[in-house]
Amino acid sequence: MTRPLGSRRELPTIGIDIGGTKVLGGVVDAAGRVLARRLHPTPGTDVAEVERVIALVVEELAEEVGGHHEVAAVGIGAAGFVDTDRSRVRFSPHLAWRDEPLRDAVQARVGLPVVVDNDANAAALAEVRFGAALGHREVLCLTLGTGIGGALVLDGRVLRGANGMAGEFGHMQVVPGGHRCECGNRGCWEQYASGNALVRDARELIRAASPVAHRLRELVGGDAGLVTGPVVTEAAREGDPLAVELFHDMGGWLGVGLAGMAAAFDPSCVVVGGGVSDAGEILLAPARAAFSRSLVGRGHRREPDIVAAALGGDAGLIGAAAMARPATHRPLRGRVRRLRGQR
Amino acid sequence: MTRPLGSRRELPTIGIDIGGTKVLGGVVDAAGRVLARRLHPTPGTDVAEVERVIALVVEELAEEVGGHHEVAAVGIGAAGFVDTDRSRVRFSPHLAWRDEPLRDAVQARVGLPVVVDNDANAAALAEVRFGAALGHREVLCLTLGTGIGGALVLDGRVLRGANGMAGEFGHMQVVPGGHRCECGNRGCWEQYASGNALVRDARELIRAASPVAHRLRELVGGDAGLVTGPVVTEAAREGDPLAVELFHDMGGWLGVGLAGMAAAFDPSCVVVGGGVSDAGEILLAPARAAFSRSLVGRGHRREPDIVAAALGGDAGLIGAAAMARPATHRPLRGRVRRLRGQR
Repeated sequence: MTRPLGSRRELPTIGIDIGGTKVLGGVVDAAGRVLARRLHPTPGTDVAEVERVIALVVEELAEEVGGHHEVAAVGIGAAGFVDTDRSRVRFSPHLAWRDEPLRDAVQARVGLPVVVDNDANAAALAEVRFGAALGHREVLCLTLGTGIGGALVLDGRVLRGANGMAGEFGHMQVVPGGHRCECGNRGCWEQYASGNALVRDARELIRAASPVAHRLRELVGGDAGLVTGPVVTEAAREGDPLAVELFHDMGGWLGVGLAGMAAAFDPSCVVVGGGVSDAGEILLAPARAAFSRSLVGRGHRREPDIVAAALGGDAGLIGAAAMARPATHRPLRGRVRRLRGQR
Repeated sequence: MTRPLGSRRELPTIGIDIGGTKVLGGVVDAAGRVLARRLHPTPGTDVAEVERVIALVVEELAEEVGGHHEVAAVGIGAAGFVDTDRSRVRFSPHLAWRDEPLRDAVQARVGLPVVVDNDANAAALAEVRFGAALGHREVLCLTLGTGIGGALVLDGRVLRGANGMAGEFGHMQVVPGGHRCECGNRGCWEQYASGNALVRDARELIRAASPVAHRLRELVGGDAGLVTGPVVTEAAREGDPLAVELFHDMGGWLGVGLAGMAAAFDPSCVVVGGGVSDAGEILLAPARAAFSRSLVGRGHRREPDIVAAALGGDAGLIGAAAMARPATHRPLRGRVRRLRGQR
């Protein structure tokens, strides 16, 4: 079947979200709806293996919607620094990638146009186009997981910066001489307002045999090493005072840091996503309180809404798919090759 | 003389920089050259008086270049929060303005199109268009005076934010529970990396009769209250170890804060201006060292240039004039009235 060129804009695109543990893909239509989904574990740190799994996910998803000619392009959100022309992963702490030409490698395998971006950028774009920040022009998005990912979306476009590395909010120093961070510094924001911070504090109290930690200790059968963000969230939902206090502390750091970010960017909306945000108001209420107490010019400005992300675990793939839409991605140089035709 | 409409773009514009102590105006051509200058003291806190002085400066400057028909428009950079449509000063800590419709008031007085913006935004735009950051696409500008003013300029446009309040970098908390700030919080960056910080520390040491402060004490005849930024700068230039150390400390805070800003924005150039930056390398060398030590992803990115502002005290008026150029300002609703015609 020959398809008129213009209609490629109407075709769905495939979004792939690559994290340290899983490769999640989906076919997404122009309205941001996920039509099909595939999940594979991330295969260790072997670059070629990861590329193979990405191609496999694309293949499976394309089959599901009627083959490659029914998909316009592929967008990849990767946990790492992506260069400004969105073709190369410069550095990925979790995937051991160094200067990986991911776009061209995947394009060669799947025969569809490919764009690559940072996973937090992709998730932020999804929340602005289809999620919690719909209709806002200046949006700050945070992804609270192990660390703090983030992006600033201005007029619907992600701020990439000179190296494509903008949005690394988690590594702003908030406590001089504070906790050591994996980045090599001390006192980074993500050591105080992320899942890592929550888990670190919970483990310390369990190991110190603190009586306040009895419920958390119970939940992990006495093994501090088994504490995760979801465990603390569960305890806080039950009303365990320590778990609630840990979220209160974390929310305080989150709010103060966000007040600094709001002083700098003046967003109209702040979206908080990522696994830790599953705690919802247990985290967001203290964050909003600290934010309002710390914001410069309070009383002389409209404060931004601080809201939970709306798209959950799909945000990354939906945003990656949106980035790949023909209206927004850079034109592919040369002919779009078909995977089957090449075999 | 009737002038064809298109040629208004070629006319010079007038830029006015209103600070707490002085109203500095200039006629500026399209290349950013200052053709004429006028300076008046800021008249107390009476709003109408300030507007009268602005009109007087415009009048004097217009006379100098051949009358009002030889000037296309007026741009005003004011020390305060300016709303998003650039007509109103919402709040000015130094000028006691509250929701002042400055644009319309001045427009009525001078009979030329007027735009209003924050003074730090104006200075930043000038440095990007004509000064130290010429040719850079992502620029972070700081103005170090009593506090820290600033702006982010992306693709030649100042980021204004949802309330027009973006760029208030000075009020990000860098020390939890730290020095009290006029904004009502504690530990704001400008309490550590501004002229205020320098002066506060110098005065404390003089008052404590510390032997390390003997040269500074000498320079102010024993009166700690007479210490100003320029006094500390002078002592540092002479090589006074305490003054050098004060700049070293301040530079350290400046560099760490800038590293946080660079993590967030990823600029290719950082411009440091304002009175305190007159110290030049005495301040910038330690700032660069602290910056490089603190930047996330160092080794995997091109670090931004950290440079001194090039336009000095004229930056604000040059930028205000540039904002007023017909190609960039919003069209004036209705007819451009002539001041003389109205009398």
